[in-house]
Amino acid sequence: MTTPPLPKARLRDLGICLGELQPGPLNAITDIPGVLVGLCTVIQDSPAVARTGVTAIFPRLDIHSDFAYGAYYSFNGIGEMTGIPFLEETGLVTSPVLLTNTNQVGLAHEALARYGTRKYGGRGFIDKLSIVAETWDGWLSDIQSFPVTEEHVVAALESAAPGPVAEGNTGGGTGMIGYEFKGGTGTASRRVEALGNAYITGALVQLNQGWRRHLLVGGVPVGKRISEQIVPSPWPAQPSSSSIIIVIGTDAPLLPHQCRRLAQRATTGLARTGGFGFATSGDIFLAFSTGVHPNPRSRRESAPSPDPAANLLHLDVLPEFSLDPLVLGAVEAVEEAILNALVAAETMTGFEGHTAYALPHDLLVEACRG
Amino acid sequence: MTTPPLPKARLRDLGICLGELQPGPLNAITDIPGVLVGLCTVIQDSPAVARTGVTAIFPRLDIHSDFAYGAYYSFNGIGEMTGIPFLEETGLVTSPVLLTNTNQVGLAHEALARYGTRKYGGRGFIDKLSIVAETWDGWLSDIQSFPVTEEHVVAALESAAPGPVAEGNTGGGTGMIGYEFKGGTGTASRRVEALGNAYITGALVQLNQGWRRHLLVGGVPVGKRISEQIVPSPWPAQPSSSSIIIVIGTDAPLLPHQCRRLAQRATTGLARTGGFGFATSGDIFLAFSTGVHPNPRSRRESAPSPDPAANLLHLDVLPEFSLDPLVLGAVEAVEEAILNALVAAETMTGFEGHTAYALPHDLLVEACRG
Amino acid sequence: MTTPPLPKARLRDLGICLGELQPGPLNAITDIPGVLVGLCTVIQDSPAVARTGVTAIFPRLDIHSDFAYGAYYSFNGIGEMTGIPFLEETGLVTSPVLLTNTNQVGLAHEALARYGTRKYGGRGFIDKLSIVAETWDGWLSDIQSFPVTEEHVVAALESAAPGPVAEGNTGGGTGMIGYEFKGGTGTASRRVEALGNAYITGALVQLNQGWRRHLLVGGVPVGKRISEQIVPSPWPAQPSSSSIIIVIGTDAPLLPHQCRRLAQRATTGLARTGGFGFATSGDIFLAFSTGVHPNPRSRRESAPSPDPAANLLHLDVLPEFSLDPLVLGAVEAVEEAILNALVAAETMTGFEGHTAYALPHDLLVEACRG
Amino acid sequence: MTTPPLPKARLRDLGICLGELQPGPLNAITDIPGVLVGLCTVIQDSPAVARTGVTAIFPRLDIHSDFAYGAYYSFNGIGEMTGIPFLEETGLVTSPVLLTNTNQVGLAHEALARYGTRKYGGRGFIDKLSIVAETWDGWLSDIQSFPVTEEHVVAALESAAPGPVAEGNTGGGTGMIGYEFKGGTGTASRRVEALGNAYITGALVQLNQGWRRHLLVGGVPVGKRISEQIVPSPWPAQPSSSSIIIVIGTDAPLLPHQCRRLAQRATTGLARTGGFGFATSGDIFLAFSTGVHPNPRSRRESAPSPDPAANLLHLDVLPEFSLDPLVLGAVEAVEEAILNALVAAETMTGFEGHTAYALPHDLLVEACRG
Repeated sequence: MTTPPLPKARLRDLGICLGELQPGPLNAITDIPGVLVGLCTVIQDSPAVARTGVTAIFPRLDIHSDFAYGAYYSFNGIGEMTGIPFLEETGLVTSPVLLTNTNQVGLAHEALARYGTRKYGGRGFIDKLSIVAETWDGWLSDIQSFPVTEEHVVAALESAAPGPVAEGNTGGGTGMIGYEFKGGTGTASRRVEALGNAYITGALVQLNQGWRRHLLVGGVPVGKRISEQIVPSPWPAQPSSSSIIIVIGTDAPLLPHQCRRLAQRATTGLARTGGFGFATSGDIFLAFSTGVHPNPRSRRESAPSPDPAANLLHLDVLPEFSLDPLVLGAVEAVEEAILNALVAAETMTGFEGHTAYALPHDLLVEACRG
Repeated sequence: MTTPPLPKARLRDLGICLGELQPGPLNAITDIPGVLVGLCTVIQDSPAVARTGVTAIFPRLDIHSDFAYGAYYSFNGIGEMTGIPFLEETGLVTSPVLLTNTNQVGLAHEALARYGTRKYGGRGFIDKLSIVAETWDGWLSDIQSFPVTEEHVVAALESAAPGPVAEGNTGGGTGMIGYEFKGGTGTASRRVEALGNAYITGALVQLNQGWRRHLLVGGVPVGKRISEQIVPSPWPAQPSSSSIIIVIGTDAPLLPHQCRRLAQRATTGLARTGGFGFATSGDIFLAFSTGVHPNPRSRRESAPSPDPAANLLHLDVLPEFSLDPLVLGAVEAVEEAILNALVAAETMTGFEGHTAYALPHDLLVEACRG
Repeated sequence: MTTPPLPKARLRDLGICLGELQPGPLNAITDIPGVLVGLCTVIQDSPAVARTGVTAIFPRLDIHSDFAYGAYYSFNGIGEMTGIPFLEETGLVTSPVLLTNTNQVGLAHEALARYGTRKYGGRGFIDKLSIVAETWDGWLSDIQSFPVTEEHVVAALESAAPGPVAEGNTGGGTGMIGYEFKGGTGTASRRVEALGNAYITGALVQLNQGWRRHLLVGGVPVGKRISEQIVPSPWPAQPSSSSIIIVIGTDAPLLPHQCRRLAQRATTGLARTGGFGFATSGDIFLAFSTGVHPNPRSRRESAPSPDPAANLLHLDVLPEFSLDPLVLGAVEAVEEAILNALVAAETMTGFEGHTAYALPHDLLVEACRG
Repeated sequence: MTTPPLPKARLRDLGICLGELQPGPLNAITDIPGVLVGLCTVIQDSPAVARTGVTAIFPRLDIHSDFAYGAYYSFNGIGEMTGIPFLEETGLVTSPVLLTNTNQVGLAHEALARYGTRKYGGRGFIDKLSIVAETWDGWLSDIQSFPVTEEHVVAALESAAPGPVAEGNTGGGTGMIGYEFKGGTGTASRRVEALGNAYITGALVQLNQGWRRHLLVGGVPVGKRISEQIVPSPWPAQPSSSSIIIVIGTDAPLLPHQCRRLAQRATTGLARTGGFGFATSGDIFLAFSTGVHPNPRSRRESAPSPDPAANLLHLDVLPEFSLDPLVLGAVEAVEEAILNALVAAETMTGFEGHTAYALPHDLLVEACRG
């Protein structure tokens, strides 16, 4: 890297507070009790120029045996999220979720399968139907060199922890470009109350999409106000559209189809920052709920109880028409996570000398003032 | 009608017992506790020739306020089932399900909305997002005369009852043609046990599809063994494909996505009788579970409880990987319901003198013997 | 009506021009060559208070025989759009699209079936699998009185014409409420160029959703700036969420799955005005393309050609990755159509004396200035 | 392997001819002009016991640049097929399709990405969004040893060829078990005529599902007639359900949504052999059409033509209601491909001494005679 990093900050540190709900204590997806995030950032110039990495999200540490409910929504599917048939069929998330670069979805998937086997040996196939998603980092990283290794994936998995999430040029978000600035990993959260119950909705994004002229911050056309004369675009000519992966989590107890409702709402959060879902973009969203334990008592491995009623799953979930607070919380968390990615990301030079410039904080603040 | 009716019988009365599970006491969808079926059969020759009707299925009597979970699957959607966006979004069945002829889906929908308003006045919109499905009876009935009236729909609704279901030329199935024999309404059920719990799976079909040469009964190519010389086809030349509506119910407690799994299984039951889902066919399936009460405590009408936990839905459902008995039960019930429709239907002459001949019981028995 | 109408205007008449693309000559969905819109507005105080109506959209005049491709997307399906199984199966739109109130989807469906039969007698069932969508107008209209009649539906169909579309309190949008102001019918269009070809994307909305505090106009939080002291909310207490139907059309030649991509983009246009898709909302979107003629040469009615190649459909369509201009055009048209509905709607008093106040143009302009 | 292989045969070699359509010259998916199949079979006892492999299906040799249309259907998604978001969004198949064991979907995916990069270097990301599907071979193979290597994947890809396909214990099907007999790879085809045009529909299956007592051959309950005393089940106690991947191809020119219609029909072919889609099964189906060339002229790499019309895709496709012959052809090909897998597979002993016995040809023939 030839450019000194800007000081780390988040959107709120700049005095820009969006939305009507309060963030959780960390303003991160890890505000959801039990959620862990691990990051492995790969920045190296040999044997090939790599600006890439792996992000691991555990809905809970023992997700391989204590499943969560989840669902996906593909707003524009020029991208990949594996594990769809199983997720659609059962609504179950049974392993950590990985985010990495486009070419190495397979590597990450295999590494996770091996990791799970080593860690929980003798288990069946269900934890092998994993969710791995990607965005393309081939402008800053020599993606054809396939730089991510099994060790990187394990490092991301092993580093998974609660607490603050390192945003910007980190994990799978390392080489991302967003709204023609440096993009990357971002997260945010909201406290929500539904029918008297307090919950968290959180989001983590891997931001790699958007045309600068569309960038909105709290409705303000910030992108139009920061010209290419002042901050060059990373691309020589017309803007290229790319992708965004959005993961929404909550401890509100939801059924699979209710998770899908939340996943669809990521579109709204994205739109509020100026995203359109362009035709070559991979805008794919996942939502999971940790508030339910759809444990597989009836798996072939374990004998059913002699008490028939004890073999049923006992679920306490939010009723269908009470989800408005979660909708608001999810949208606000997504919107702010996207902007946090932009704010945290630092200027990066990579493959073939390409440079993606960070969104300058002073210009952002100034632009928001109008 | 110019043809005398054959004596009423069901497949099992002919000594043909298919499948490995036992039927419920009535071998009907009404074996599911609380399920009601109502039928209004419209057979008249003036002012226009009508061979049509309405079938009403109540998952429970107070379905408008005590909702059930459900889901649909469209195997070949050249047909109509209304209410899809709501059903997909919420997994809720909030009103009786109606089956009628193709042209009068709207009439039935409006009549049901008016009926609900009269009966439960002051209610909101949720019970107006109803499920009405259809098959085309225009070969035997002057469908362009729009013969079904609001009174017919109300009659079907008001006649809904537990107990045996009149099969064959009844309700929405009155003018149907199946496998080039007279088709119609059919039903069947199976006792199933899942994790020590006893349940019923039942099916009701409105059979209007199939080419005779494909008809299978317990694997036997019965259709090929009953030539057109002996029993003429209803059509002058090549067989026309039409439609089938299949409704699967169960008292096993299922979530919406699990209901969808059952709905998809109707394909297998259909295939076992020789159905292919031809390109102009409307083969649309619904599955519902009465074993869950996803009651809308949080609807705007009622105040939430001061105890937050009391505002959650408490659901006891079957775990994801324990559904095999229900799969078997649904498939067998669908298969037998289709054949029951053929066995119960009686030769009918209608519009423009067209005649659809019943499947002769003696020939069926003989063909099954090989 | 007790309130005098405000002078009619559209958003651009107020000097508020959003987006980067140019509108078509009428800035309406009818800028798409061949598209017709018909409206029947029902405002009466006896026998019951009615503020309702019917909107009819013809992708082309002879849509019953010269089909169009289309697709739907349900962002939040607490609403109804009929015709889904057929639309999903074939991608075909085969009849005019109707919009009306929630309770009378069935009436409109039946009336359209009868109309089609009278008009094109002898046709089959395909034009009976119609698309009818709804939003709830029960705050201003005595919806339980079922005020729409077959004559109203026919009037909407018969009045269908190219040219300007009457917005605001018209057609199915008559009794709508949007962002706690008077809502209704709105339309807009954009000129787009894709790979050197010039097309129109247009939208027509029936706006009945949104909380005032979320209303955005060009990113400006206009809703927050117009207090309830100045313009009262139509509701006594907390805002109720409702619904929006969005119809996107284009003459760009698209396949069904490409239409679905456009339909999904309506979410973005909605989000840009402050819509979230709340949990009890029916936010259901349709997109159609008139640039393709998927004519059913092989329908059973007509004999196939002796030249096998002549029996194939010859389609010239936009390639998959060239849709960005259409995405932009659709989003901008939807955004402006929603705001046009607000601008055109006039204060209305209806059922039980409820009043929904128009968005005052001067306050809107002032709020946009900041 | 401790058991000598039975002589190779196919179902028709045994005199069992199912269906009403004629097979293509090879009775294989490779009857479709241009379709290639490659197989790498991994049978080794050290370092770990492996009975596994890789199957590669090229819709055409240059599929990475001359895309095909396709679609998937998940009948029961307890399994994996990657590439779903891209396939759903665009309807495009842009790389060879791979089948392997459950644990190594990722390895196969990564190997294919590397292979594509080496072979077609400089290409973008679209050919990286590949379709890799799996079934579980952990009863006969030490699946936890992750025996498939990148070299195996390349070998499958490099061996891809037209001509006969080696069935049974081959490729990804090596360690499969079907209907409690030895399963594996199977293929079949049908000649179909649609509107005067001659086409092929073909199927290739990786058969790993089914309970013996359900096995049907031409409607005959063959499974019930071959007792465990004569041919033991591979499992000690109750039958386990597993999975089946079905790939349907055709040179009939189809749009993506029409491919989905074919994919759904695989259910019928499966049902005709006794498959139910049990609750832990991964029954996932893909259909592709080579008769259309949805070439991406507008990809960013290539400049559009100055002639706008030349930038459109010119597609000649079958009209919507003419697909019946393809439906029949697909169902028959799937049914026979499943049975061909059973007939070709040979008794195999593997991991922990488990043995899966081949379906004895003499007993099969005898059972079919009744």
